Amino acid sequence: MTLFAFRLEGRSGRGRAGVVRTPHGEIPTPAFAPVGTQATVKALTPRHLAEIEARLVLANTYHLYLRPGAERIAALGGLHAFMGWPGPILTDSGGFQVFSLAATRQVDDDGVSFRSHLDGSLHRLTPEKSIALQAQLGADIIMAFDECPPPHDRRTNEEALRRTHLWAERSLAAHTRQDQALFAIVQGGIFPDLREQSARTIAALKTPGIAIGGLSVGETKAEMHAVLEALDALLPEDRPRYLMGVGSPDDLVECVCRGVDLFDCVLPTRMARNHAALTRRGRLNLRAAAHADDPRPLDPGCGCYTCQTFSRAYLRHLCASEEMLAATLLSIHNLRLLITLTADLRTAILEGRLETFAEAFRADYRKRRPEGE
Amino acid sequence: MTLFAFRLEGRSGRGRAGVVRTPHGEIPTPAFAPVGTQATVKALTPRHLAEIEARLVLANTYHLYLRPGAERIAALGGLHAFMGWPGPILTDSGGFQVFSLAATRQVDDDGVSFRSHLDGSLHRLTPEKSIALQAQLGADIIMAFDECPPPHDRRTNEEALRRTHLWAERSLAAHTRQDQALFAIVQGGIFPDLREQSARTIAALKTPGIAIGGLSVGETKAEMHAVLEALDALLPEDRPRYLMGVGSPDDLVECVCRGVDLFDCVLPTRMARNHAALTRRGRLNLRAAAHADDPRPLDPGCGCYTCQTFSRAYLRHLCASEEMLAATLLSIHNLRLLITLTADLRTAILEGRLETFAEAFRADYRKRRPEGE
Repeated sequence: MTLFAFRLEGRSGRGRAGVVRTPHGEIPTPAFAPVGTQATVKALTPRHLAEIEARLVLANTYHLYLRPGAERIAALGGLHAFMGWPGPILTDSGGFQVFSLAATRQVDDDGVSFRSHLDGSLHRLTPEKSIALQAQLGADIIMAFDECPPPHDRRTNEEALRRTHLWAERSLAAHTRQDQALFAIVQGGIFPDLREQSARTIAALKTPGIAIGGLSVGETKAEMHAVLEALDALLPEDRPRYLMGVGSPDDLVECVCRGVDLFDCVLPTRMARNHAALTRRGRLNLRAAAHADDPRPLDPGCGCYTCQTFSRAYLRHLCASEEMLAATLLSIHNLRLLITLTADLRTAILEGRLETFAEAFRADYRKRRPEGE
Repeated sequence: MTLFAFRLEGRSGRGRAGVVRTPHGEIPTPAFAPVGTQATVKALTPRHLAEIEARLVLANTYHLYLRPGAERIAALGGLHAFMGWPGPILTDSGGFQVFSLAATRQVDDDGVSFRSHLDGSLHRLTPEKSIALQAQLGADIIMAFDECPPPHDRRTNEEALRRTHLWAERSLAAHTRQDQALFAIVQGGIFPDLREQSARTIAALKTPGIAIGGLSVGETKAEMHAVLEALDALLPEDRPRYLMGVGSPDDLVECVCRGVDLFDCVLPTRMARNHAALTRRGRLNLRAAAHADDPRPLDPGCGCYTCQTFSRAYLRHLCASEEMLAATLLSIHNLRLLITLTADLRTAILEGRLETFAEAFRADYRKRRPEGE
């Protein structure tokens, strides 16, 4: 446990500030991780990621297993060398993508058979296979193999939870690399008793971190918040909590207030490719004609390269002209916004004023300007 | 002429080394200018351009006139501020695009009427309009309005040349901004007598630089070289010569050996988007499976970010996965290659060994490895 550690440095309300130590560097928490699905955060170089102070990057085992192959990445020195990112990396188990992307799939207690969304070829993932693939990829933080069903169906969630717990134990047994921290995943949909059962089972595994899966997949915000509040009381204080796939500005604030430490989400980069900018006052549609003559930056308070260099008028021109640079510049801004927001949340926690910060944020965020302002 | 000057620093054979001074910085020549058609060199930030030591960037008046509009760019502070590029910029006159891109066009001695390739709207360009648009855009080097016909039709070239000369005089008369250097353009297709007539007419206008148009548009390499050799004897020594739209590695070497100082071309960035890399030994197709496990950089001798950070295997993965980063990383390398090549040509000229350098280059370049190596 010398290669990996979590140090809790402060609390404010239910919010937590800490530091996750990994073999490739420290991650001050709360932290937001950009998603590099195919071993690239779309439209950005690793240098861009360093400039916006990303501290953790996620990559997807399902995608990299299918293309270019985990064995190939291992032979090329592992994911850090392959994608040119020297900082901490987290890989998911592949489970979520099998259930959301694969063409057909068949689940049994041993694992999942599925067809590739790329070419229809037949594949099988088990807990042991997922951990072996993640060992080949070589990320700092890896995930137990789990089943992630739709959140509202009780019967499906019971069955999936039973498997997820079985698979967590098998994932742990298959885990070999001491330089990788294996996180197990709490599931249970929107059902308080299932979530409680899952939290107790997963916590008992004593993994160095705990992930919360199956949220932001169709439930309401109130349902998500209720689950997080219930889990906060049950999860161990001394291990980082990673809420998978969540990442709008208001979600970050609300979930940090409910005890979450780590986040990842494709939202900021996907929105960038759709020509939308995130701000602390809501979203801006950069295709709107209203921006065509606007010399102001996206956000006058933002220190990112995009806001320091370019006008809304220029960004609007790039979007209207379908130039690739639009996605790059908007991704820089959107990611930087979420990273700055988690840094500000961290400071507010360390200074004991999280609730004041959150209240001010909510007041601003509610004053959303209309699209295109 | 204090804002703009050309200083010839050395010759080797017919090759020239010099420095072009502009209000936004100096351009050591020979130099290659990346093309930023729509006020962005596709897939690159201005910082990338600075890193690869680009000294001059081209933008297209035709495209920027149609979208977002030259008046709008002027109101936003001109092209340098708009696109966030603080170095020298060159704009073309719009003539070439009207003849190559516009949906329909009608030429008379006064100018050209055409329909936009974007929305079919009707527009008219004249020498006066082109210079006014370029004044609004605010580049350091601007071009006289010209007609660029196919290179092999004698009658069309005679007629176009008569107009090009008329229009060069009118462009000069319309030129007002002292911080912009107006270059006139030599035309005449592949016909030695027309080229000679054009060189004498254009040289007599005493513009601070002379462009050579109508090459690399369908003629053979031998025809292009013959035109350049004929022009070299006729063009004034004390003004920079800009060969428009030329830019493969071997073209740069051969044309520098025939007295050319400035180049621009979409080839390196267009090839990057088509997943091909330029090297001094020919091209590499990065989609080829042969690269899938290759840990080597594109070019072990190249100092660019791409070659210093990523393997061919990773680049091949990005190309196969249709990731946007492929275009960015290959554009960085391809442009850097041409910029380094012009810098090496410059050194060879200053050291009086251009022909030796060119011979060694030709020997290497002829040893092209098969695609995918």
